Amino acid sequence: MYTIESIDGGVCSATGFYADGIHIGLKKEGAKDLAFIYSDTPCVIASVFTTNKMTAAPIRHFRKKGQFEGNFVLINAKNANAMTGPAGIEDIDEVLNALSDKFPQIQHPIMSSTGVIGVRLPKKKIIEGAMKFDLSKRESNNASEAIMTTDTFSKRIAFEVKLEGGKSFRIGAMAKGAGMINPAMATMLCFITTDALVDQATMQSVLDECTKTTFNAASVDGDTSTNDTVLVMANGKSGAFHPEAFRGALEAIMLFLAKEMVRDGEGATKLVTYKVTGAQNNIQAEVAAKALSNSLLVKTALFGEDPNWGRIASTVGASGIECDESTLSIWFDDVCVYRKGELLFDAKLEPLAAAVMQKNRFIIHCDIGLDDGSFTAYGCDLGHEYVKINADYRT
Amino acid sequence: MYTIESIDGGVCSATGFYADGIHIGLKKEGAKDLAFIYSDTPCVIASVFTTNKMTAAPIRHFRKKGQFEGNFVLINAKNANAMTGPAGIEDIDEVLNALSDKFPQIQHPIMSSTGVIGVRLPKKKIIEGAMKFDLSKRESNNASEAIMTTDTFSKRIAFEVKLEGGKSFRIGAMAKGAGMINPAMATMLCFITTDALVDQATMQSVLDECTKTTFNAASVDGDTSTNDTVLVMANGKSGAFHPEAFRGALEAIMLFLAKEMVRDGEGATKLVTYKVTGAQNNIQAEVAAKALSNSLLVKTALFGEDPNWGRIASTVGASGIECDESTLSIWFDDVCVYRKGELLFDAKLEPLAAAVMQKNRFIIHCDIGLDDGSFTAYGCDLGHEYVKINADYRT
Repeated sequence: MYTIESIDGGVCSATGFYADGIHIGLKKEGAKDLAFIYSDTPCVIASVFTTNKMTAAPIRHFRKKGQFEGNFVLINAKNANAMTGPAGIEDIDEVLNALSDKFPQIQHPIMSSTGVIGVRLPKKKIIEGAMKFDLSKRESNNASEAIMTTDTFSKRIAFEVKLEGGKSFRIGAMAKGAGMINPAMATMLCFITTDALVDQATMQSVLDECTKTTFNAASVDGDTSTNDTVLVMANGKSGAFHPEAFRGALEAIMLFLAKEMVRDGEGATKLVTYKVTGAQNNIQAEVAAKALSNSLLVKTALFGEDPNWGRIASTVGASGIECDESTLSIWFDDVCVYRKGELLFDAKLEPLAAAVMQKNRFIIHCDIGLDDGSFTAYGCDLGHEYVKINADYRT
Repeated sequence: MYTIESIDGGVCSATGFYADGIHIGLKKEGAKDLAFIYSDTPCVIASVFTTNKMTAAPIRHFRKKGQFEGNFVLINAKNANAMTGPAGIEDIDEVLNALSDKFPQIQHPIMSSTGVIGVRLPKKKIIEGAMKFDLSKRESNNASEAIMTTDTFSKRIAFEVKLEGGKSFRIGAMAKGAGMINPAMATMLCFITTDALVDQATMQSVLDECTKTTFNAASVDGDTSTNDTVLVMANGKSGAFHPEAFRGALEAIMLFLAKEMVRDGEGATKLVTYKVTGAQNNIQAEVAAKALSNSLLVKTALFGEDPNWGRIASTVGASGIECDESTLSIWFDDVCVYRKGELLFDAKLEPLAAAVMQKNRFIIHCDIGLDDGSFTAYGCDLGHEYVKINADYRT
């Protein structure tokens, strides 16, 4: 038996991990823009990256090295180092070499970037800034602030897993999201650290599985970035491990951060859970759930708090899955608005449905009524702020 | 040889066709909301409908009858007669029977609807209103106004095709679009009438082909409605036909209306042509072009007149097609902003690119640089008006 307890913290919660975030002049007005994570002993590393073919330089750099271990990650905001070709990779080498020269305890360092596409990395600023790092700092708050782009709040979480016999391990994490969040691997950076004694292959396989139901089930705007990255670093320092508990804690962390990213989607005011059941199979349920979470018409109806169930039905129908109006049922939380061909929506039901739509979090449940395929996706509304933020992001 | 000339007109331009639009109280403030098209001799009919599985009652009604001929179409706005089950079909029968009783010259009438989903058809109002139709009217303007929903202008066009030897035929059309326009068959109604002497099978095959490069290449918001319909009626009264000329005129009409719909997309201020060349094949080019025309990040950058070519590159990369930054090139009209890995964008180029973005119509051209697959799609920007219109459509 084991218990998983939420603790105050982030990427420094696990033993042996250090982190900080500082301002080096990439963001305006002194905002933190450069972060590191460091472990004082070697780590095994698991990773998931974007499916975008225009993969950013940091991801190409990581893959080129076929990297499964390392004890240091450098993260900058404001520049994605994407579409920068071979020069983008050389820039990373130069930055990381300078860091290794300055801090000999760093082994196999990794770089991660987020920001504008198609501009060379400001490597001089980054190198000069990184020279000021203090690797003994445990400021997970600073680190999680430094990686923010259009996020309105920083995102971090930590768990302690207590096993029978008094042993325990910890997992902590930070993430940034906001725009370009999408089922095909959200535009996001997420860094997870743990002192669990887990081997690389096990950790990679748990990460792959958990990604499907968490980050890949979250959508803000259906776009997939060039830089999406999830890294998990394990230094084994606790000497403890329990596969089921590890998986449970990792999935809880990733689901929490995925939902936090959606809730903080650009201009979002609502976090909506799209539960699809009764589909012919799980894949069809996933297609429908993601079609709902990505539909502009659904998103704008959510923003308008308009219980427009017709758009839900139409979106399910347009998704291409097997379905029929005579077997479909739709609920807003517990309020059934359409049941197997029966038009329930009337002057009495409308205010009940509208009251659900006014909540910050609620569930839209579609039962396709055919078989037992199911999937749950997470999405947000789309309002004026999204347009405002994205109409002029570069300036 | 033949010539295709644009003429002033619409669905009444071809010989023997009549149409009108009247107000029966479905829309507010006297706006026209019920239209008919009538031919005084029998027509063959070709059709294309939505791919949405939640097909609206009018389309189910049409398909049930396996209809290839008829001389009358009734079109109402404000109610889609979708998700209304068997009762929705019965409502149509009742309306059309009443019309046939009143006007014995009507044969195999068809009904088409657009508006809110999930509300029973106001059939009493529609029947009472339709009794006032004057089938000798040739008011194509009124008809095209009556079918509008959130359209800001009515859409119609007509061509006269002059053949060698003095024979000629005409094709006229009207359409409504605005929201829910999408590559997988736009949410739209389009009615095309012709006095060409064409058989049903030929007309259907030309319509299917032309749909791919016109309505199915147009996107406003990536949604596909329950009611999308294109109907072509041919009464043969001109006694003239020329396959190539007919195809040319039909495609020109459909492309014009597709672009008009995009230009009048909800809240749209720009009509953008996405030309993708150099893809591995035409299908990959189509996938990339449609990904661009549907990307929220691209659409909002257009609205902000921000020459953010990085989002173009990222969207191509996210589309899943074969591509690489080292072979990709991007132009805004004639301004090349990225060429095969070369970062061209600088302080000198930016104002040139920005000037293109300020135009109402321009071309974004992506050369994938791999082979000779190509496709052209049409899209618009997404601004505050889209959110405003869709956040509260029902009320």
